[in-house]
Amino acid sequence: MSSTRAGEFALIDAFLAPFGLSRESRAMAPGAAGVILGPGDDCARLLPSRGKQLIATTDAAVDGVHFDLARSSAEDAGWKALAMNLSDLAAAGAVPRWFLCALSVPKLARAQAIATAQGFARGMAQLAKASGCTLVGGNVTRARDWSITITALGETAHPLSRAGGKPGDRLLLVGELGAAALGLILLRKRRKPALGKDERAAVQAQLRPVPQARAGQIAARLASAAIDLSDGLLQDLGHLCARSGCTAELQLASLPRSPAVRAHEAKAATRGAHPYALSLSGGEEYALLLAVPRKHVATLRARLAREQIDSNVIGSLATPKRFSRTPNAITLWDQDRAIPLPERLGHDHLAR
Amino acid sequence: MSSTRAGEFALIDAFLAPFGLSRESRAMAPGAAGVILGPGDDCARLLPSRGKQLIATTDAAVDGVHFDLARSSAEDAGWKALAMNLSDLAAAGAVPRWFLCALSVPKLARAQAIATAQGFARGMAQLAKASGCTLVGGNVTRARDWSITITALGETAHPLSRAGGKPGDRLLLVGELGAAALGLILLRKRRKPALGKDERAAVQAQLRPVPQARAGQIAARLASAAIDLSDGLLQDLGHLCARSGCTAELQLASLPRSPAVRAHEAKAATRGAHPYALSLSGGEEYALLLAVPRKHVATLRARLAREQIDSNVIGSLATPKRFSRTPNAITLWDQDRAIPLPERLGHDHLAR
Repeated sequence: MSSTRAGEFALIDAFLAPFGLSRESRAMAPGAAGVILGPGDDCARLLPSRGKQLIATTDAAVDGVHFDLARSSAEDAGWKALAMNLSDLAAAGAVPRWFLCALSVPKLARAQAIATAQGFARGMAQLAKASGCTLVGGNVTRARDWSITITALGETAHPLSRAGGKPGDRLLLVGELGAAALGLILLRKRRKPALGKDERAAVQAQLRPVPQARAGQIAARLASAAIDLSDGLLQDLGHLCARSGCTAELQLASLPRSPAVRAHEAKAATRGAHPYALSLSGGEEYALLLAVPRKHVATLRARLAREQIDSNVIGSLATPKRFSRTPNAITLWDQDRAIPLPERLGHDHLAR
Repeated sequence: MSSTRAGEFALIDAFLAPFGLSRESRAMAPGAAGVILGPGDDCARLLPSRGKQLIATTDAAVDGVHFDLARSSAEDAGWKALAMNLSDLAAAGAVPRWFLCALSVPKLARAQAIATAQGFARGMAQLAKASGCTLVGGNVTRARDWSITITALGETAHPLSRAGGKPGDRLLLVGELGAAALGLILLRKRRKPALGKDERAAVQAQLRPVPQARAGQIAARLASAAIDLSDGLLQDLGHLCARSGCTAELQLASLPRSPAVRAHEAKAATRGAHPYALSLSGGEEYALLLAVPRKHVATLRARLAREQIDSNVIGSLATPKRFSRTPNAITLWDQDRAIPLPERLGHDHLAR
């Protein structure tokens, strides 16, 4: 080892340790199926399963944008960076297999840099272990800010995508709405209020989102389309509608919201905000939105329930009206009364 | 499309255009084999080839670290970011298949951001087309600096790695030494000198490195180990030695250096620098270093020559001396005279 690279190598070793790996570990940790050669070489060597499609996604988490080391731990950031990617695999109905992690490291005192990198790895390794997803490669580089760019690879024989939804399909939501957005509001408060149980759950939803991997796999053979809610329900449902060539109707009363989210939305509504602002446009929920043919809804919900996964029918897809100027439009219903959309539909990744 | 995301989507569209893609293009460009679903969904869906291993690598290029938009074009940066990854695939002997690109975008005037992103894509698309590697997914996020993080996927039935070299193997180098490092020195000069043909080639080697993809594929069945030279010959050869459990001997007279590199090294030596400083420790060459059993050297060189690929035997692997304190040591030979190593062995990715 060259002395000039001692800093880089010490950081890589600290990062690999929580995964039970080192730069010298050629063989992978037990249970890492399909990995012939992992971190420590130029490339990982993997054995895809026969008869499956390979599902690939990449997502970056940047300090000050997707996480904030001033307000949350490196462990939380590492967890979230991987969760963002696993949530995309969940929306494809894929089983997570492998991931690569490119880390950007700012100039810091060496001990601090190493501690932060290892913190990322600890949080990431927890979720990786729980998800059966193996770290197989990575990269370290200098940059002005910490960032974590992950590429996750999964497999499935029955992939879901945003396309494929049909008019009449029910919209089934796995997960809750608005909690992650409320969590961010609470984390950003200068004066920290005492938090109730529900509000602590909202903070947790922001810091440690849980990708709906199992639900996606269960849904893969029954749903017609899927998307994960990273940008807010309205925006992501809009993507699904556009790809599926449908409009959508949402029943506001059916949106799954915790009491804390309801309370926050009600309070904000007295100041003129949309009464479902967090639930409809919140973002970063990593809930799973499925379009499901009517005849499969009961079966799918039963299969999810068998694995203790809650789901809610929140609306349905519909046929675009001819000559409509907004062909992919979403209509909000409060019982039988149409409610206007909020002004801000969702989250712009270049605006925050 | 939500108006709040217009900026993000316009940038994504501009980025996809040079690849002949759009957010709406579900089908891929003609010739993109093995791609069922490309950019525009949560995940790409790919069909791995039967009987092949999947080879995966990730590498980030950051403005001000790996490229410098103040000194070179966005096209060059995009090319280089992909080249860094394809060079890793080359060292594994893999055929490039697919890549994903995560882009970090600083706050800039919208037109400038879009023009730069499209410049990256133009350079990347040129190399992607020449390499038969298809863009299948990506991500856009806000950050303080431009960065391009690529994950490249390739396939081969006969992968190479750093391990597997044996004492007696010849060290075969495909590509030149020192040119990329000289190019960087020339680019960083405040007063721009008039450049000779050779020096312009050095600048080109820094800005548009050419991954040795074909050479890696040809070598896959004959070489015993391989590494690409991203960090300088001595450092990368050290990695190969460590993994292969060998020492190495290099014949300095055999190192392939352009006249401009020789002239620069000779001039620097008069000021006390190591006489082969650029060639031995330069970095970013993306040349391919192969360990080749003696009996295969002539065959491999002939096969490379048939495709107009130059190669040079620059040394050999040897057995570590027992009780040696530096088991992976590299010895430099000037004919039969041992020459000391330079003080700086290579490139620290956290130091630059």
